[in-house]
Amino acid sequence: MPPNYFEAMNYDRMVSDYPAGDAFVAMAKTLSRDELFTRQDAAFRKTMAFAWTVPFYKRLWSSAGIEPGDVRGLADIAKLPVYDKSDLMRAVEEHPPIGDFSGLETYPADSRPPLIFQTTSGTTGRPQPLLFGPRSRELQNLLLSRIYALQGLSRQDVVHSVYGHGMVNGGHYVREAITHWVGCQMLTAGTGVETRSVNQVQLMRDFGVTAIIGFGDYIKRLAQVARENGIEPGRDIKVRMISGHMGTDAAAIGEAWGGAEIYDWYGVGDTGAIAGEGPDHDGLYVIEDAQYLELLDVDTQAPVADGTIGDMVVTCLYKDDVYPIIRFNTHDVSEAMTGASSIGLKLKRIKGFLGRSDNMVKLRGINIYPQAIGTIMTTHADALNGEYICEVTTDGQRDEMRVHAECRAPDPGLAERLEGLLRERLGVAIAVTLAAPNALADLTQIETRQKPIRLIDRRKDG
Amino acid sequence: MPPNYFEAMNYDRMVSDYPAGDAFVAMAKTLSRDELFTRQDAAFRKTMAFAWTVPFYKRLWSSAGIEPGDVRGLADIAKLPVYDKSDLMRAVEEHPPIGDFSGLETYPADSRPPLIFQTTSGTTGRPQPLLFGPRSRELQNLLLSRIYALQGLSRQDVVHSVYGHGMVNGGHYVREAITHWVGCQMLTAGTGVETRSVNQVQLMRDFGVTAIIGFGDYIKRLAQVARENGIEPGRDIKVRMISGHMGTDAAAIGEAWGGAEIYDWYGVGDTGAIAGEGPDHDGLYVIEDAQYLELLDVDTQAPVADGTIGDMVVTCLYKDDVYPIIRFNTHDVSEAMTGASSIGLKLKRIKGFLGRSDNMVKLRGINIYPQAIGTIMTTHADALNGEYICEVTTDGQRDEMRVHAECRAPDPGLAERLEGLLRERLGVAIAVTLAAPNALADLTQIETRQKPIRLIDRRKDG
Repeated sequence: MPPNYFEAMNYDRMVSDYPAGDAFVAMAKTLSRDELFTRQDAAFRKTMAFAWTVPFYKRLWSSAGIEPGDVRGLADIAKLPVYDKSDLMRAVEEHPPIGDFSGLETYPADSRPPLIFQTTSGTTGRPQPLLFGPRSRELQNLLLSRIYALQGLSRQDVVHSVYGHGMVNGGHYVREAITHWVGCQMLTAGTGVETRSVNQVQLMRDFGVTAIIGFGDYIKRLAQVARENGIEPGRDIKVRMISGHMGTDAAAIGEAWGGAEIYDWYGVGDTGAIAGEGPDHDGLYVIEDAQYLELLDVDTQAPVADGTIGDMVVTCLYKDDVYPIIRFNTHDVSEAMTGASSIGLKLKRIKGFLGRSDNMVKLRGINIYPQAIGTIMTTHADALNGEYICEVTTDGQRDEMRVHAECRAPDPGLAERLEGLLRERLGVAIAVTLAAPNALADLTQIETRQKPIRLIDRRKDG
Repeated sequence: MPPNYFEAMNYDRMVSDYPAGDAFVAMAKTLSRDELFTRQDAAFRKTMAFAWTVPFYKRLWSSAGIEPGDVRGLADIAKLPVYDKSDLMRAVEEHPPIGDFSGLETYPADSRPPLIFQTTSGTTGRPQPLLFGPRSRELQNLLLSRIYALQGLSRQDVVHSVYGHGMVNGGHYVREAITHWVGCQMLTAGTGVETRSVNQVQLMRDFGVTAIIGFGDYIKRLAQVARENGIEPGRDIKVRMISGHMGTDAAAIGEAWGGAEIYDWYGVGDTGAIAGEGPDHDGLYVIEDAQYLELLDVDTQAPVADGTIGDMVVTCLYKDDVYPIIRFNTHDVSEAMTGASSIGLKLKRIKGFLGRSDNMVKLRGINIYPQAIGTIMTTHADALNGEYICEVTTDGQRDEMRVHAECRAPDPGLAERLEGLLRERLGVAIAVTLAAPNALADLTQIETRQKPIRLIDRRKDG
């Protein structure tokens, strides 16, 4: 009989390899960089050995001229090619229905672990299969609980989750992390499609929610829905913290929720949590014993210097049972931070999600990320409500960008002031058009998407 | 530190107390009725002892004049009062937000198990909290996997689930049961609101689905959606089995899916799975070592004879960590079957869900269940498509029922033939009005509800 979930995950080994919760925070303060590298290197070798048995990697690496002996450890990782979602989708197409990257066929039938199967949200086309074994799935849950522990989420909290369910991984993932490892009461409300927004705020009030997790844009919207229904965030719903993916407008979200403390974290469906903000609110700590994160130049794929934007390329050191992940290019960009942690953690820090390199627009040789424009405009949070979308057009010769931004009230001269600000910060002219509150909702799809649309590219339209 | 989910659930003890999967089927063939009672009695005493510490039960039992010594074992269970959802909702109102039936406050803080919290779908008003501890939650998952094992769902299947997620328990429950205990690949599509019906059938085709689980009404609808989109059930989607809550029209559902084998099972949110159909398709086997099921007269609450309809009243013998369930009246009715199992299982059998006693309508002294009307009408499955709704009116003196039924094509005389059939079977006159296909969808809400509405009571309207 093949092992079930609990037999395959091996609880004792898991918690000894990767300390959970508070034990992780203690480890992050004491583990030296040398000890860390030793652990990383051992886990990497194990995962590499598994990946060499998986057809997807054999093909990827062989076609780059790599042979098994070429990469002897983590120090050699840069020899390996990066890959991305398009490679996985091609593997799915050539080896339907789940591609040839799981490695499940390498197990004898009577020791084959169960497959945990979800998909991405498919916001950029056909959904991508996300594959886990019990060990790597439950380790992802454990790793996310480390970030929640670092941020102070505790057994006494009542957590409201607005991550979506269905085929999509997010909602199931956070539910497992909270239920199995944090152990506090949880409201799995999901998106506004699963539980209507007005019902969500009533549930939050009725069940005494103290923390919200999910995507910042929708969490901000919920505060508005609460007020529209006579429920005052902070007074009638005493939210003390919000953790998730905050985008550009973290301060405004905390304010909308009556002064709740905001914590960011970063991860993608394939890899799980990679880095999370701590109580010092000074960047996101990378959980380096499990996730090896590289920042690579968007064009050359060479490592970038600290403080320079690069593609986040991830190797999951812990994912050694089903679908190993070695040098996966998320196409999300960030930059490494320098200087010591003020709370004594010895882990690397990054700035968090700063945009997508496949949403990057080159204007007169300058790389522009729509997300960065959102961040710059938060300096006018008194006049703008944070909703915006960037539109790129071309006359065939020259590309132009126009930002549409919702403003709270008509304000003559505001568009010109914003144009001046963007030119000053980005070094290139970008036009600004103001819109009424909610006027952009159809374009951004903020009501229905967990990640609203921030870029419309009209260059191929003509 | 209080235990996390895995520490509190105690895997080894759980699988030794309640054999999972195939080990259950073997046990059900060999365990004598005496041995069974001994196990039931021991588990009952343990659960009773816990329940006596829980305020909700202290109140319920004391107000019925029961004292701790009065019920010494399972043989005395009939001395205890039954309770139902309205008692739980009153407890929630008086002890917000989760009532006083969890028993969590009886644990010392450092050994208190985490609370698993979901709700009912709230189709009949405000959603009811569903509370589990790790042991009782994971045992519910294990118990459902027993039913799937009995029905032949295996590691090789690809299961498509149309149970809803969000706050509602169903989708999360079956996902845990399949992921943790069956171990096959699963598509957690959810309701048509979570994943559009046309996307669901495409996913089923693309990922090679072999089994569907959920509510029969929507599963039947999916076959129709597949055909409308050029996907032939049985050929393009090779579904070999369907397991769930089949209602009145199981044969039609199997036929719509190209001859798939249909398996019914019964349970409610609080209790989890109680009984499931086996490969003999001769009633639903009650998983008696874990669930103690009584069938009680709807009016007098006295035990009914085998073959007579009664309220299903459940005691969860295994639920001894959080929210014990002792004599919970589901208000779903069924009847016990007699005669030996043709596949050698020594467990009691019931007919499955036959209607709700709170949907029961008394016409000239005869108890009529809308569900039963649906079953009777399946004898005309060639002319009717299975969609119907019952409407009750009164002139103040005398109640009347009218059944609206969708027919595939105009058929003069069909209404009269159906009226004759219902009069003959039920012994009372019921009017029949035919409707065009889909004409009743707004009334039954079949597109949006997992359990469509089958009764409109207009007696209070005037």
